[in-house]
Amino acid sequence: MASPSTSPAPPGGKWKIAIIGSGNWGSAIARLIGINVQAKPHLFEPEVKMWFKGRSLVQQFNESHENVKYLPGIKVPHCVVAEADLVRSVQGANALVFVTPHAFVPGICKQLRGKIDPNCRALSLVKGVEVSAENISIFAQVIEEQLGIPCGALSGANIADEVARDAFGETTIACKDQQEGQRWYEAFHTQTFRVQITDDVVGVSLAGALKNVVAIAAGACDGLGWGNNAKAAIMRIGLLEMRKFALEFFDTARPETFVHSSAGIADLITSCLGGRNRKCGEAFVKTGKSFDVLEREMLNGQKLQGVQTAKEVHEFLKARGRVDSYPLFHAVYNIAYEGLPPAKLTARL
Amino acid sequence: MASPSTSPAPPGGKWKIAIIGSGNWGSAIARLIGINVQAKPHLFEPEVKMWFKGRSLVQQFNESHENVKYLPGIKVPHCVVAEADLVRSVQGANALVFVTPHAFVPGICKQLRGKIDPNCRALSLVKGVEVSAENISIFAQVIEEQLGIPCGALSGANIADEVARDAFGETTIACKDQQEGQRWYEAFHTQTFRVQITDDVVGVSLAGALKNVVAIAAGACDGLGWGNNAKAAIMRIGLLEMRKFALEFFDTARPETFVHSSAGIADLITSCLGGRNRKCGEAFVKTGKSFDVLEREMLNGQKLQGVQTAKEVHEFLKARGRVDSYPLFHAVYNIAYEGLPPAKLTARL
Repeated sequence: MASPSTSPAPPGGKWKIAIIGSGNWGSAIARLIGINVQAKPHLFEPEVKMWFKGRSLVQQFNESHENVKYLPGIKVPHCVVAEADLVRSVQGANALVFVTPHAFVPGICKQLRGKIDPNCRALSLVKGVEVSAENISIFAQVIEEQLGIPCGALSGANIADEVARDAFGETTIACKDQQEGQRWYEAFHTQTFRVQITDDVVGVSLAGALKNVVAIAAGACDGLGWGNNAKAAIMRIGLLEMRKFALEFFDTARPETFVHSSAGIADLITSCLGGRNRKCGEAFVKTGKSFDVLEREMLNGQKLQGVQTAKEVHEFLKARGRVDSYPLFHAVYNIAYEGLPPAKLTARL
Repeated sequence: MASPSTSPAPPGGKWKIAIIGSGNWGSAIARLIGINVQAKPHLFEPEVKMWFKGRSLVQQFNESHENVKYLPGIKVPHCVVAEADLVRSVQGANALVFVTPHAFVPGICKQLRGKIDPNCRALSLVKGVEVSAENISIFAQVIEEQLGIPCGALSGANIADEVARDAFGETTIACKDQQEGQRWYEAFHTQTFRVQITDDVVGVSLAGALKNVVAIAAGACDGLGWGNNAKAAIMRIGLLEMRKFALEFFDTARPETFVHSSAGIADLITSCLGGRNRKCGEAFVKTGKSFDVLEREMLNGQKLQGVQTAKEVHEFLKARGRVDSYPLFHAVYNIAYEGLPPAKLTARL
């Protein structure tokens, strides 16, 4: 991991960035990219297209420079231009930032195939993992395979609203090519949003998905009123299961991504202190409602990724006879889907 | 690290444990030791003496089996017997548990020298580090040197009141001799208080001291209202500085103690979520009062270890020209002692 602070002359020319996605997180990072693109004209083309699903928001954004629906009150630099047509949004771009809900990725890739610059590269800010049959793949891989271009990943302890108001924070960008990693660094890094670079694309992506399972457990612990010793223990054990899972099933994953980086330990902390998985884990214990009901009642259309990932991971481990080696993941699955009383969360740890 | 679950036949005979200290934490662990001593008569002598400073509490404890001053409402097994005379408390004991405030340790060792079983071993639950001139030493070393007996260390994410009410938690016991480590495990481990064993006495002890410096920073972050991204980043950076410090200055310290164990990452989390250093760090920013004043007002006679440790570590690093390599430790020192505005906490990270 390195944190370069100087901008090298651009090998391979300037980058023209397109942002695919316009939600809360997409809008927060559009602001950072806009700031950096303006400040570094030697590295980036001046205009950044941003794909919005829905024409009404496009017009509103291009007039107000604000995503009034998903990030109200935050101005995005004028160089970021909203575009309702997906294919037009990537025209001329050679650097694509994917920041949509994960369910949209296959459809978007299908629409983009053959329509993008063949020398393009991509960065996935998509959360979650893709599970098909008995395989787990990360969205950076999905994008690489679907579009035939290299794709890195960005993940970290990044609550969008805090990043948008320039509160101090960090993130991890994973990119197999070091030079490309440095350029992505230049596109995202600011004085308050510190970027670390690594080449562990798989580790960064998995950490961002698996931490949601641990956050469900941390929330259950809060709901049970067990206190901070128990919560810290669950986070510690969860972090080690995340790392173990990555190392057991993905050859290229590296342990330090989990225990050192913002995408690992720091994102886990943020998710277990605040995020929606923690909140729903707590409500599950306190209300006795199912996670389906809680998702509808509490998340305003957003998905509760932790329980979905717990199920996918469980099926993946079961197919390999490895369930018992991941007792915390197993307990979350059992609690969410098989009626295990939450108070048994730590019984097999 | 290993978690043995069976009790071996005792090589070297049974242990007779004496507990030196009777505060909040000492009383909580006296309860665990009492439970284990009763349950494992093949490993431990049935009586455990516990040294109390002050005769009035001794009588009260031996009648009520409760430390009404420091851990009210929690019954300790009858096999734990309070004793006001320090030397009598260790008579016949061959396993000493030190659990006093750190300032008492030198005086206690002086009184005990030549009065203890020469085949004794000890375990330090004393928090903090000992700084003399340009050396930092841990209390396990101080006890070893003063008494000429081997001494391990116990540290972890252990809020005493939570341990006392059997909420789930973990701890780390470090002992250079593996067999002795196993016996300490048998003395402390319960179904809800899970013990891990390691041989990294220095790492476990340092983690317990240095985490308080990071907790001051985490509290300042709370006071500044920066949010969870910033707090997670500070915890991540702090953990890596703790580890770096240990590895740079203590040959035998091991990195995994910091990033894997309850004494490392988990204790850091607990301290940054709850503990008194975090609380005072927050109040420092919000009230503008000095840490001396806050200690008097908020801690009811307890010491604010984080700012003291920050100072000692700073002096140690300064003597070696290494201050700049530990920017978070440096910032905490600057904020506490040199008037750096708390908002500059992350400026040099």
